[in-house]
Amino acid sequence: MSISDSSGLDRNSFWDSLFGAESIAVIGAKDVVGSWGHDALRAALNSTDGVKRQVYAVNPSLREILGVTSYNSVLDIPGTVELAIIVVPANIVPEVLRQCARKGVKAAVIVSAGFGEVDEAGARLEAEIVDIARRGGIRFIGPNCIGHADMYSRLASAAVAGRVKPGPMALLSQSGTLGASIMQTAASVGIGLSKFVSTGNEADLHLEDYLEYLAQDENTRIIAAYIEGLREGRRFFNLAKEITLQKPVVVMKAGSTGGSGRAARSHTGALAGSDAIYTAAFRQTGVIRTEDEEELCDTVLALLSQPLPRGDRVAILTMGGGFGVVTSEDCEKEGLKIAPLEPQTLEKLNGVLPPRWSHGNPIDLVGIRPSAGDTTVVSCFRFLMEDGNIDGVISLLPPMVTSHGGIGNFDPGQLRAMQMESRKVLSDLNRQLKPYGKPLYMVGRFSQQVRHSADDTSFRVEDTIPEYSHPRRAARVMRYLAWYRRYLEARK
Amino acid sequence: MSISDSSGLDRNSFWDSLFGAESIAVIGAKDVVGSWGHDALRAALNSTDGVKRQVYAVNPSLREILGVTSYNSVLDIPGTVELAIIVVPANIVPEVLRQCARKGVKAAVIVSAGFGEVDEAGARLEAEIVDIARRGGIRFIGPNCIGHADMYSRLASAAVAGRVKPGPMALLSQSGTLGASIMQTAASVGIGLSKFVSTGNEADLHLEDYLEYLAQDENTRIIAAYIEGLREGRRFFNLAKEITLQKPVVVMKAGSTGGSGRAARSHTGALAGSDAIYTAAFRQTGVIRTEDEEELCDTVLALLSQPLPRGDRVAILTMGGGFGVVTSEDCEKEGLKIAPLEPQTLEKLNGVLPPRWSHGNPIDLVGIRPSAGDTTVVSCFRFLMEDGNIDGVISLLPPMVTSHGGIGNFDPGQLRAMQMESRKVLSDLNRQLKPYGKPLYMVGRFSQQVRHSADDTSFRVEDTIPEYSHPRRAARVMRYLAWYRRYLEARK
Repeated sequence: MSISDSSGLDRNSFWDSLFGAESIAVIGAKDVVGSWGHDALRAALNSTDGVKRQVYAVNPSLREILGVTSYNSVLDIPGTVELAIIVVPANIVPEVLRQCARKGVKAAVIVSAGFGEVDEAGARLEAEIVDIARRGGIRFIGPNCIGHADMYSRLASAAVAGRVKPGPMALLSQSGTLGASIMQTAASVGIGLSKFVSTGNEADLHLEDYLEYLAQDENTRIIAAYIEGLREGRRFFNLAKEITLQKPVVVMKAGSTGGSGRAARSHTGALAGSDAIYTAAFRQTGVIRTEDEEELCDTVLALLSQPLPRGDRVAILTMGGGFGVVTSEDCEKEGLKIAPLEPQTLEKLNGVLPPRWSHGNPIDLVGIRPSAGDTTVVSCFRFLMEDGNIDGVISLLPPMVTSHGGIGNFDPGQLRAMQMESRKVLSDLNRQLKPYGKPLYMVGRFSQQVRHSADDTSFRVEDTIPEYSHPRRAARVMRYLAWYRRYLEARK
Repeated sequence: MSISDSSGLDRNSFWDSLFGAESIAVIGAKDVVGSWGHDALRAALNSTDGVKRQVYAVNPSLREILGVTSYNSVLDIPGTVELAIIVVPANIVPEVLRQCARKGVKAAVIVSAGFGEVDEAGARLEAEIVDIARRGGIRFIGPNCIGHADMYSRLASAAVAGRVKPGPMALLSQSGTLGASIMQTAASVGIGLSKFVSTGNEADLHLEDYLEYLAQDENTRIIAAYIEGLREGRRFFNLAKEITLQKPVVVMKAGSTGGSGRAARSHTGALAGSDAIYTAAFRQTGVIRTEDEEELCDTVLALLSQPLPRGDRVAILTMGGGFGVVTSEDCEKEGLKIAPLEPQTLEKLNGVLPPRWSHGNPIDLVGIRPSAGDTTVVSCFRFLMEDGNIDGVISLLPPMVTSHGGIGNFDPGQLRAMQMESRKVLSDLNRQLKPYGKPLYMVGRFSQQVRHSADDTSFRVEDTIPEYSHPRRAARVMRYLAWYRRYLEARK
């Protein structure tokens, strides 16, 4: 990939310090559980697990926090400090930054709020800290953010990212809470993260800087972002136009209505701009725009494991007519076509299905209950993938046979066993269908009932078939990804 | 309520037999686990727990199933049989029904498929069984359905309803699978059911008959329905117009697009009709139309515990600006107004909040972390409810303080403890805010992370504040219910 380095950033210095520092000072560390200063120190200390990394606390009123000596200032720390995490009141940040510059700190994360997002005085203070940092050779995240994390180097200033497992998705967020919410959703469906940045007010580093950096980051296969407003819109879209050819960029952009735009301005001072302009620019640069956290993660799941659909013609496989009706409706509302099957597909299906099946698309198996080891359903998938009229399949068949005899809740042991069985069936199926180069999307409840565990390293979403809780979600993913494939082909 | 009994049904006979029979024959019972005949017998046998009820199996090829003697025919059963659950092949149903008539069976549930939904011959067979039943004095559910259940009398022919707890919502479904899906969603958020009917082809009893019956059913406070097409549209809407003044009717209507309408016709033979006509008729008769299972249950949760909003002016309370932006956008997209606060509300909030709060709506507490026992947040809720500009509040504050230090997953014990604490906080809050007569909707992840247990009788959703996983869902519920209140006031 060739992306012009318009920012003049030196990739071998502060980025390495930001995401992999070997020495960290938490300035404004506190001993009050639940305070930002406590969370930040805890996050930093967690990042020393099995990693060569020194963490120092700075707070003149305390002698020790969480078992770590507390220094009066960063200048009193005996060793070098590469990265500073700053959690002091806004009016003290300038002095702290000056001390950091003298100490030789290369990068900082300024969690502190009370700058440009508040009032004019705050904006002046923000300009001042940018000036101090520039002259002192410090690049920084924030202010007014919840921190950052690198799940591979295990470095984190955001406590909230502490238990997220390493994986292929980088996340940039112009809101801390939304970033946390997206991470939570991602974790719940098994998506691991490479890096996370809560960009805050973007006084120094802009969303565009992170985007450019992540384009080159080997651990990042997909870039996700929550956006309220871009400071360098033209640069963002120039970058995106190149990046989306190599790595999907999936965004959630807020602020499309009047009140939400006003709320965005008072939140991080971002100028939301015309939403229509954003929409057009996303489309022209191959950026996939999703509506909420769930859709964002739904789309990422499909990008990770399924081929992009060649078009918008869908086959729907179901075990009950009602689901066929609802899914047809959802697909058509999303602009997908319920394609007629080829005559030879009908014949092939007649060969394996009992006579009462629907003889058309949706393919309704009408109450058939496939038993374990039965290959009928796999054959149906194959026949549909071989059909030249079909670009992708949405399946409402359960991934496995359950004879649980009722709705309600299962005990954790039962759920665990069902999940394990379901995962095996899905990954086997994914392997068998891979040669066809067409996507399969499952609709089921398993992904909702069983949360993915951060410690569960035996399972990779890349190896399975995505499961969505509702057909609408599968339909929307197929619409987005058929569009993305058309975009990529037009750019060839 | 005065609803004209246009159907001429005698409520003291077959309805009692359908939902509370003391003797049941499962005709076509099977010993193959996972078969419909096995499921139906299992469901029927479960309904004898602690209830005076006799269940018989009928299958000439077997001598015993699940510990129950299997008879050659219903005529061989020694005692009386009030209700027959019929799970035999379609072509045998006429003979089985004749035998039932001779036996004095009052009501039947015909699970068997292969009638009007298949072809012309099936339609003729369907007409024949209606004729036999009419002449034999039998009223029946189906055919081509998954059965029914009464959660209070504990009678069930649908195995899928076996673990659903008793509660205030009746559910009618023109699709078995969708019915099951709605029940599963309801169970997962803690909504109990009064009765469930999978209406199937509605050869004899129509959706309108059940609706009329449920209007009088004391255990039913809310009627929910999944509809593909109405056989007696005029009657449905005449009934609905009266019922919605007393009991909310919440529907999910499918088949609004071309392909889904075709799929509906081949599913249960329903004529979907023009979706626009349905939409207009729902609006004219006070029926709340929702888009999917989640929305349906979201709406029911709010109906059960919160007052209806007097209008569409909303206050948004949040702990992070990003959520304020997203929620404002969701509210405005749903047509709600982000109302300006009254001057005295601003003053009251200034009195309890630290200076950095947003001083407007959305009310952003900006990183405040209320501790357990802190009454600041409760005061905020009170001040907003006292504001004459506000009709309802959406809160993105966590219901309780958690210091879990990260995203990811908790062990079941931790989750259980957090759930219990959260429930207590929410029910206390609900009690405190009740006098204001305005609704509060919470947005949080708890309802997703912790599934409600069917056995958990200590908790009633009626006593708590509904929690939704996304602000859009709260906004939509408020839109629906503000409309419903306007409708009711216009009808006064």
